[in-house]
Amino acid sequence: MVAAEPIYDTIAVIGCGLIGGSLARAARLAGAANTIVIAEQGAAKARVEALHLGDRVTDDLCEAVKDADLVVFATPVRAIGPAAELASRCYKPGATITDVGSVKGAVGQALRASAPATVHVVPGHPIAGTEQSGPDAGFAELFDNRWTILTPANDPSPDYQGAVDRLARFWTALGARVEMMDEQHHDLVLAVTSHLPHLIAYNIVGTADDLEKVTQTEVMKYSAGGFRDFTRIAASDPVMWRDVFLTNKDAVLEILGRFLEDLHTLSRHIRMGDGDALQALFTRTRAIRRGIIEAGQETAEPDFGRHHGHAPVSPGEPSG
Amino acid sequence: MVAAEPIYDTIAVIGCGLIGGSLARAARLAGAANTIVIAEQGAAKARVEALHLGDRVTDDLCEAVKDADLVVFATPVRAIGPAAELASRCYKPGATITDVGSVKGAVGQALRASAPATVHVVPGHPIAGTEQSGPDAGFAELFDNRWTILTPANDPSPDYQGAVDRLARFWTALGARVEMMDEQHHDLVLAVTSHLPHLIAYNIVGTADDLEKVTQTEVMKYSAGGFRDFTRIAASDPVMWRDVFLTNKDAVLEILGRFLEDLHTLSRHIRMGDGDALQALFTRTRAIRRGIIEAGQETAEPDFGRHHGHAPVSPGEPSG
Repeated sequence: MVAAEPIYDTIAVIGCGLIGGSLARAARLAGAANTIVIAEQGAAKARVEALHLGDRVTDDLCEAVKDADLVVFATPVRAIGPAAELASRCYKPGATITDVGSVKGAVGQALRASAPATVHVVPGHPIAGTEQSGPDAGFAELFDNRWTILTPANDPSPDYQGAVDRLARFWTALGARVEMMDEQHHDLVLAVTSHLPHLIAYNIVGTADDLEKVTQTEVMKYSAGGFRDFTRIAASDPVMWRDVFLTNKDAVLEILGRFLEDLHTLSRHIRMGDGDALQALFTRTRAIRRGIIEAGQETAEPDFGRHHGHAPVSPGEPSG
Repeated sequence: MVAAEPIYDTIAVIGCGLIGGSLARAARLAGAANTIVIAEQGAAKARVEALHLGDRVTDDLCEAVKDADLVVFATPVRAIGPAAELASRCYKPGATITDVGSVKGAVGQALRASAPATVHVVPGHPIAGTEQSGPDAGFAELFDNRWTILTPANDPSPDYQGAVDRLARFWTALGARVEMMDEQHHDLVLAVTSHLPHLIAYNIVGTADDLEKVTQTEVMKYSAGGFRDFTRIAASDPVMWRDVFLTNKDAVLEILGRFLEDLHTLSRHIRMGDGDALQALFTRTRAIRRGIIEAGQETAEPDFGRHHGHAPVSPGEPSG
């Protein structure tokens, strides 16, 4: 995470939660921008100020973007369109307009709808995060060795291509690896690697919470059998995820359909007692995890390297 | 994990994978037994010997159990019945017979079927594990602060109750907290907290592996969006999990039915664009994770405390 010189003079980060706050910290640490302006509101604005995440913090979108060479929308995805419409009157000519949203088709369309011809719209998505949210949750290393996908328009002009290259260099300076992709393909890939996993996790946690014959206390006490893994992503920001499912509906429902077909097949194997089919699937899935570890996207430590034996309060025990 | 004096003179561990190997290490460290005998076969037997996990290692079940005051079956659950039948001819009178299987109804029945009246059958299940398997994967701290469920018979005789109490003290000496439960209720609770999560994880990893429009490479590269969490438990031992689904069929299918009902409802909310319903579920599920952390069964660190920026090979980068 190093930049020989700033990639942009001034950047504006619109919305400063986990991703916006991590981007501001990482850009500062890497020296990737001379000036960082943050747009936030209310209690979050006060936290951003207290944490000194930007050189200036404002709740005025026009004020935030007017000098910015790079504008990064980092709000929940359905808020990006309205925010971009307000800000677009004040974009600096020649600026690059991007975002960090988990859905690219709907967001790209929204960004382009309000953008004047004097700016370059290059939507983006860093594949990184934790289950926490808000300005305090961010950290500068979040993007290290993670992929950021850019979904540029099909515009071969040197000006536009220069803007794409510069944004790619910015993300690289923040520690990320950069890949270009078509918007529609991005939305299908992320439906598999992110949106469906979140949907399933939210659903199983909801199911466990609703049972009559098994108490919530039992679910919590015995969660180390696997369930607790799902609760992590089911603790992610509710508004962000509501927006993802509303704006990537088609791809999510397509992938969910495949998941359900497979689950019905698996259910039938269990009902029929087909041990060979079960064992064949369970063996095949091991290889995928090995591939992810080898691709540098996951820790090889057992149990994610969780600390073992973490007790809320460790009772004193006799030694001897 | 401390015992003032050994709980049993001699224990026999039948099958020495992740759980059996952890139990042998923990019992040794805690001084919970004077002598540890391990039954294993083939390559695993050689590893157990090389790792010095027991005082004696044998592939003869009769030899393993003949002096044991506690016999612990730690094989995949469908192997427990046949192994117990072979071993039962040699059980020491007064011995306690237990196991560590993830299913209690079928295993309890199998243990009791072959046990002579001279021994006490007390099935058990430590709710602990990692995605790794084999003798090398075990470690002494695996049971620290985790729950072990015992499913004793409804036998009020002082001899039997004494055997139950002694086994509970053994698990406590190994660091675990102990709870008593009815076999059928155990199987339903674990269907929720462990078996369904594994089924869902195996299924989603299988689905992602089967798509035509999204490549395996893409799934792996962009897995940090959530998918990689599922691959951990989908990398668990295939034979162990085949046996769990075959022996806890009814409870798994019951809970899977509830999960599917809820998933179809959630799918309809997405299709209809019902943002309020989505947000309500996604907000409710956050509370469950907080409860699990407060119950001491999960780390509070973001992202499970995974190390960030783990690269397979860290390329040299210019500094400055």
